[in-house]
Amino acid sequence: MILILTPNIQPENETYQQLMSHLARLPNIQVRVHIEKGIEQTLTELYLIGNTSAVSVEEMRALPGVERVVRVSEEYRVLGRHLDDQRPAYFDYQGLRFGQDSFHIFAGLCAVDNAQNVEFMMRALKEQGQVCTRMGAYKPRTSPYSFQGHGRTCLPFVFELAGKYGIRVIAMEITHESHIDEIQDALYQTGAPTGVMLQIGTRNTQNFELLKIVGRQQEFPVLLKRGFGITLDESLHAAEYLASEGNRKVVFGLRGIKSNLGDPHRNFVDFVHVPVVKRLTRMPVCIDPSHAVGARSSGPEGILDLLHATAQGVIAGANMVLVDFHPVPSRALVDGPQALLIEELPHFLEDVQIAREAYEKRSLLRTRYANQPSTQERDLVLT
Amino acid sequence: MILILTPNIQPENETYQQLMSHLARLPNIQVRVHIEKGIEQTLTELYLIGNTSAVSVEEMRALPGVERVVRVSEEYRVLGRHLDDQRPAYFDYQGLRFGQDSFHIFAGLCAVDNAQNVEFMMRALKEQGQVCTRMGAYKPRTSPYSFQGHGRTCLPFVFELAGKYGIRVIAMEITHESHIDEIQDALYQTGAPTGVMLQIGTRNTQNFELLKIVGRQQEFPVLLKRGFGITLDESLHAAEYLASEGNRKVVFGLRGIKSNLGDPHRNFVDFVHVPVVKRLTRMPVCIDPSHAVGARSSGPEGILDLLHATAQGVIAGANMVLVDFHPVPSRALVDGPQALLIEELPHFLEDVQIAREAYEKRSLLRTRYANQPSTQERDLVLT
Amino acid sequence: MILILTPNIQPENETYQQLMSHLARLPNIQVRVHIEKGIEQTLTELYLIGNTSAVSVEEMRALPGVERVVRVSEEYRVLGRHLDDQRPAYFDYQGLRFGQDSFHIFAGLCAVDNAQNVEFMMRALKEQGQVCTRMGAYKPRTSPYSFQGHGRTCLPFVFELAGKYGIRVIAMEITHESHIDEIQDALYQTGAPTGVMLQIGTRNTQNFELLKIVGRQQEFPVLLKRGFGITLDESLHAAEYLASEGNRKVVFGLRGIKSNLGDPHRNFVDFVHVPVVKRLTRMPVCIDPSHAVGARSSGPEGILDLLHATAQGVIAGANMVLVDFHPVPSRALVDGPQALLIEELPHFLEDVQIAREAYEKRSLLRTRYANQPSTQERDLVLT
Amino acid sequence: MILILTPNIQPENETYQQLMSHLARLPNIQVRVHIEKGIEQTLTELYLIGNTSAVSVEEMRALPGVERVVRVSEEYRVLGRHLDDQRPAYFDYQGLRFGQDSFHIFAGLCAVDNAQNVEFMMRALKEQGQVCTRMGAYKPRTSPYSFQGHGRTCLPFVFELAGKYGIRVIAMEITHESHIDEIQDALYQTGAPTGVMLQIGTRNTQNFELLKIVGRQQEFPVLLKRGFGITLDESLHAAEYLASEGNRKVVFGLRGIKSNLGDPHRNFVDFVHVPVVKRLTRMPVCIDPSHAVGARSSGPEGILDLLHATAQGVIAGANMVLVDFHPVPSRALVDGPQALLIEELPHFLEDVQIAREAYEKRSLLRTRYANQPSTQERDLVLT
Repeated sequence: MILILTPNIQPENETYQQLMSHLARLPNIQVRVHIEKGIEQTLTELYLIGNTSAVSVEEMRALPGVERVVRVSEEYRVLGRHLDDQRPAYFDYQGLRFGQDSFHIFAGLCAVDNAQNVEFMMRALKEQGQVCTRMGAYKPRTSPYSFQGHGRTCLPFVFELAGKYGIRVIAMEITHESHIDEIQDALYQTGAPTGVMLQIGTRNTQNFELLKIVGRQQEFPVLLKRGFGITLDESLHAAEYLASEGNRKVVFGLRGIKSNLGDPHRNFVDFVHVPVVKRLTRMPVCIDPSHAVGARSSGPEGILDLLHATAQGVIAGANMVLVDFHPVPSRALVDGPQALLIEELPHFLEDVQIAREAYEKRSLLRTRYANQPSTQERDLVLT
Repeated sequence: MILILTPNIQPENETYQQLMSHLARLPNIQVRVHIEKGIEQTLTELYLIGNTSAVSVEEMRALPGVERVVRVSEEYRVLGRHLDDQRPAYFDYQGLRFGQDSFHIFAGLCAVDNAQNVEFMMRALKEQGQVCTRMGAYKPRTSPYSFQGHGRTCLPFVFELAGKYGIRVIAMEITHESHIDEIQDALYQTGAPTGVMLQIGTRNTQNFELLKIVGRQQEFPVLLKRGFGITLDESLHAAEYLASEGNRKVVFGLRGIKSNLGDPHRNFVDFVHVPVVKRLTRMPVCIDPSHAVGARSSGPEGILDLLHATAQGVIAGANMVLVDFHPVPSRALVDGPQALLIEELPHFLEDVQIAREAYEKRSLLRTRYANQPSTQERDLVLT
Repeated sequence: MILILTPNIQPENETYQQLMSHLARLPNIQVRVHIEKGIEQTLTELYLIGNTSAVSVEEMRALPGVERVVRVSEEYRVLGRHLDDQRPAYFDYQGLRFGQDSFHIFAGLCAVDNAQNVEFMMRALKEQGQVCTRMGAYKPRTSPYSFQGHGRTCLPFVFELAGKYGIRVIAMEITHESHIDEIQDALYQTGAPTGVMLQIGTRNTQNFELLKIVGRQQEFPVLLKRGFGITLDESLHAAEYLASEGNRKVVFGLRGIKSNLGDPHRNFVDFVHVPVVKRLTRMPVCIDPSHAVGARSSGPEGILDLLHATAQGVIAGANMVLVDFHPVPSRALVDGPQALLIEELPHFLEDVQIAREAYEKRSLLRTRYANQPSTQERDLVLT
Repeated sequence: MILILTPNIQPENETYQQLMSHLARLPNIQVRVHIEKGIEQTLTELYLIGNTSAVSVEEMRALPGVERVVRVSEEYRVLGRHLDDQRPAYFDYQGLRFGQDSFHIFAGLCAVDNAQNVEFMMRALKEQGQVCTRMGAYKPRTSPYSFQGHGRTCLPFVFELAGKYGIRVIAMEITHESHIDEIQDALYQTGAPTGVMLQIGTRNTQNFELLKIVGRQQEFPVLLKRGFGITLDESLHAAEYLASEGNRKVVFGLRGIKSNLGDPHRNFVDFVHVPVVKRLTRMPVCIDPSHAVGARSSGPEGILDLLHATAQGVIAGANMVLVDFHPVPSRALVDGPQALLIEELPHFLEDVQIAREAYEKRSLLRTRYANQPSTQERDLVLT
């Protein structure tokens, strides 16, 4: 059970102390405090753990300092969307909001190769008004004999160039806990010109030890990719490893699953799960069309499959798009065949914009119909 | 190799006869004639079969009566989109055009239960200006002890009601060759008030004997569903069974694949393959969101997953939507849980319309960018 | 509920008539009679259909002429193994017994090409004391442009050669109901020198109309292959289509499922399901290592994967093995790469024999341990 | 290219020095030395890296001190079985040999719960003459709220009890690099009464950072489990991460893949891949029937599916079996439903023994047939 306290309540408040001493008297119940500092306010949540079945929601709601009470189901305790759970579903980072209502594009290099290409990319982003990007320094590769990324050596110039071109958040995959320190060091060294969203890739979705360590820091938000060979449910449980250690700034990423029934695409695109993740949890949802589609084929209209897949995710409410670009894909060190050309960026952004506007129209349409008395009751019922 | 002749050429023409006698002299080559009668013109195609590698495209193009020449790749000889293949990709039926550019919605009953519900459905369609529907008379069921559809007994009232409400085409699954006769009989008996598109379901995608028999008739167009446990390539080969027997009025239907990685949906939705089918073949593509999603869950905006999946297919260029409605889903004899309520039809149609308009905008955008000199060359390259 | 009557009871017996008139008085219960003629005795089963929950097992067991009573669960009514169901699990055909205890090898040609190769194969079988074979006349192929089998034209010489070499049963795939007539005609024409087990392939596992028609004849037993892209449960339901129409002489065939996680084999071998099918149903279980493995690779000992897979099925209790041989695999018209050489037949048979003996030893071992008092109770519990 | 030197050659030998100085003169070639110390001899391998296509096998074979030369294919450079590669495929640890010819059973507790159960297990193993076991201290669990294992606190009593009962090797999963230190510490602290084989579980198969660190130590051999949602090829590449860092004492473990087509088993059992792994690499192969099958169901003979699956792996040449036992499975903290009872150990061991003997007979049979002139040539050909 979660007690959401009145905003900005302080531990030294009398109300707070009364509440805590009351809770301390409940038999077989422990209290765990979680404080979420946002831009505008500080939110305090108390998790009651133990035999909460004996505790009534009404009784708790009546306690001083308690604003709302959510009875937690077993699944996805922290990140889940529980019954009658209207808590806000977003976090703020680097002045940007990441929630189930927001929308951001992270176009960039799958793998950093050299400073020139990084600068080429970031300049193009700035020209298009973009403030986020993806940059890969640590690359997990199927074979130990493949290029594994430039690692920490490239971080200083990546961060400096980000600052130069006004990039506020870089999504960057890490594969080991030491990479967090390396990123922190490089940010410190370069004067923190940008922010980083730590990305956990699909091969590490169930690397629980890494998740726990990443979950213990709250400096960086985390983008957790779905495991490409496990169920959605198992991947959502993995996100709980981050949250249960304290970090709830978690974005969930869809990137397709492994199955030859998805051929000729590299993976079987799973963006139909965008609304599912938003229903089951309060996480914003990211799509990665580049890794999902994995090729530059196009339909008879000349529109790339990759753009179609992106539009599919966005029209269903995706909150973030991670997409690979490269100045010269044929020379990219990793995943060149799926990269868009930097000069295709304007087309890509306009195409995405059409899909986003369609999503917004669909949301308004739904609200309009929901307010009509006749259908109101029936289709509010969720399965 | 296919020689596409000048439109409306007749076998009694001298040009035609000259051409044929020339072809007859080619060593080790047989000629097979295919005539496609459209509303406006009759198209004649000559298939050269045998050792065509010795025959040059240029030489053939120079022959009298030949308008265009397509060298056929091994895959999907008849329905495939071959290199430099600009042949029209549509057919006409009941005054409607079905092509890679058209768009039709087939909302209706998964299984016909009684005349009252059929009439209720058709009246609603007419009110919304719809002229197509789906109606299931023959239902293949996993267990022999489940309801198997009313079969031919329901056909007369279904067809009569269709006529009454101006429905021009009914998509109807058949599972045995005798069903074609039964449908023909019932249409004859009722004065042919409507048309039928024969549907081959996912369990019969590789029932090649049925495909051959359905392919031998050209009265009814065919909607072939993808096999839910085979690759896309194998399903496209199955479509060739229809076409190689003579019937090219084939729509290809996506309906999801079987995999628990698609949970909580009933099937793993595969609408990302819409542009793939349109690239590899000249068939129009149908999506079946009802069987793919299989439930009435909805995201936090209150939009059903089923509507999201539909929008995803449509924004990527789907040409046809097959969708289940029912007046009282809880009493439906088959697949009630996935049916939309008839009163949800207006919302559904408006929602689809938003997605279709977004697709059209995206196509225009693509044309605009393709005409810009800088990117023109690069991204016309298909994989 | 099923009442198994005393063996050889006759409809004209007084006991039988008393029983039937008693049952006729039960409210809301219909009785369906099934008669199974074996070599030694005739078994009569009465299926009580309708509201059987009001009928007690004890009451029925006390009726005259009733030997045993089985309360049927919903799943696999006819072929299923119900609680406390000790009915015999076999049928006889051509003097051979096919049951969960028997063991037969069907080595032969995947596709009949010419009489010479058929004779070559059958002579080799006779030399090795074999009395069963496989011979493909009707071949379902992914592409309509591939060789589809010689069909009925090859049947007469296949049957005559079978008779010449003492082959008693030929497993032969059919893909259309007309093939049953063609086989009957050819057998009649040649004097019925052999028997045929009709085989339904994996692409037709859910071709329910074909199953119903095959189920309505009781002349030929049926080998139903598992659907390669559906669950085991769905495939077992398909077997019920045969049985519910009257034919219970059904062997269930495992042949692998489609998944690239099975690479480098052609299919993902599923012979671990041998004991599962034997637990859930009373059908004998066949394995098809040739189609499952699909190649002639071998391990470092030099034993072919195909032999390993066969041994795996047999040591777990498989009752039948379907395996492809060919005199010159490189010239086989279908699936040559997976065929064994005819001169490898003795090695194959000896290898299988080792696995079969190991299975028998394991069964005896199990009986010995089950009879020891200490473990007897615990591990009889089934899940 | 790999040069295998004469056994027991020393770096201070003149031959060795001549060889190295010759190699140093080859243009664009680096030499990497790998020394493998076995019980009887020390083996030195020189890896030539770089432009080896210009170097001939014959020339290298003629050099002093070189016994054999293997040209390495791109795949699985270190662990792979290359063309004409007859190098020994085993390693020694704690006086036991682990190779493609050896056979060991690791029966034990999936998760250590208390010292009493550990002792109960080990005493039973000793009584049956077993010297290996499995003991789980670190348990990766899908949900962060499940029991995660007792970790390092249980190590001392586990190791002491192992010593007391003559257990020489314990297979123990680790999920973080720190666990290696904890195991080393506990072994040191308890006087190294036993050995440990580090196990990498299926969720960490592509946790490349962990693999690299485990690969850098050579004290403990490693059991790498197949990733349950990736191809076999990808999992074998993961094994190369261990080997390329220096540790070649790697056993490869099969444990089933995730697919609902494997229902009713927990995973789709993949033991048909035993000979495939032995063909493609030189690693011994382990099977884990407990996690693969995941339940205690049994066939009509009363033999558990789990025993059938084990027999299937063993008759195809598995070199190691990892299997869960528990004194009271219903009280086990992890995976109780799949555990065998300790009193079932004798039956299990005897059942396995039958399968192992069948494998050995099959190997002898193969040798006998291979030596017959007629078939000798044909079936030595591998795909």
